[in-house]
Amino acid sequence: MSDGAAEMAAVAREILALETAALRRWCDGDPSGFLAISAPDVTYFEPFLARRLDGLQALTAHYEALRGKIRAERFELLDPVVRPLGDAGAVLSFDFVSWSGAEARRLDWHCSEVYALTSEGWRIVQTHWSLPRNAAASG
Amino acid sequence: MSDGAAEMAAVAREILALETAALRRWCDGDPSGFLAISAPDVTYFEPFLARRLDGLQALTAHYEALRGKIRAERFELLDPVVRPLGDAGAVLSFDFVSWSGAEARRLDWHCSEVYALTSEGWRIVQTHWSLPRNAAASG
Repeated sequence: MSDGAAEMAAVAREILALETAALRRWCDGDPSGFLAISAPDVTYFEPFLARRLDGLQALTAHYEALRGKIRAERFELLDPVVRPLGDAGAVLSFDFVSWSGAEARRLDWHCSEVYALTSEGWRIVQTHWSLPRNAAASG
Repeated sequence: MSDGAAEMAAVAREILALETAALRRWCDGDPSGFLAISAPDVTYFEPFLARRLDGLQALTAHYEALRGKIRAERFELLDPVVRPLGDAGAVLSFDFVSWSGAEARRLDWHCSEVYALTSEGWRIVQTHWSLPRNAAASG
């Protein structure tokens, strides 16, 4: 059995791997990666929705409408930090940059993801994507 | 001893009361309410910062520069939801509306706050404020 710090590092690695794999699919037009790791009671914020979206069913409907429409050739998670909350939760936060198109248009985002440990593994219970003002992104 | 559901409801009430009290001070130009309930390792996103801000010291410097400059006569938390993460954490999410000035200018925000239970009580470890696009807010 590893000590607490090693366990925390393992949790951080696992969560970061889940997020990165889902982002890789997302940037290839496929929202199923995120849908597969979001909890039934997920809550979701993004700048193009005026209000919070509640529940996996609503998130699925929203994401299916975007399927095939989003593409980025390259992305980076800047300074991702995983902050554990006891044994049952953790919050991942990072700044996100993606580049897409022939002109490699850059988009900058803030992102926080709250993960809960469920019987099925780590699942996202809160997602918050936002756009810094005056960033490269224009919506 | 109350059952699990009653305990969860009590936690939700406590966190919502902490947040609302801090917001009341914030809307009166006083950032000390949030600083008093933010953890030393808090991470923080807002639209007017291009990158995540890390730690209470950095948040204090940022907020002190805003002291006395923010005022709203009235605010509302729309549909606040507290999602517990075991016994040690919880995430609060809500849409926020405030009204300020003689013309009662309306500002709309998304907000998620991750709270951790520490030896000093509930403390915010992750704050994320963002502006919906095409909302009343113009930064």
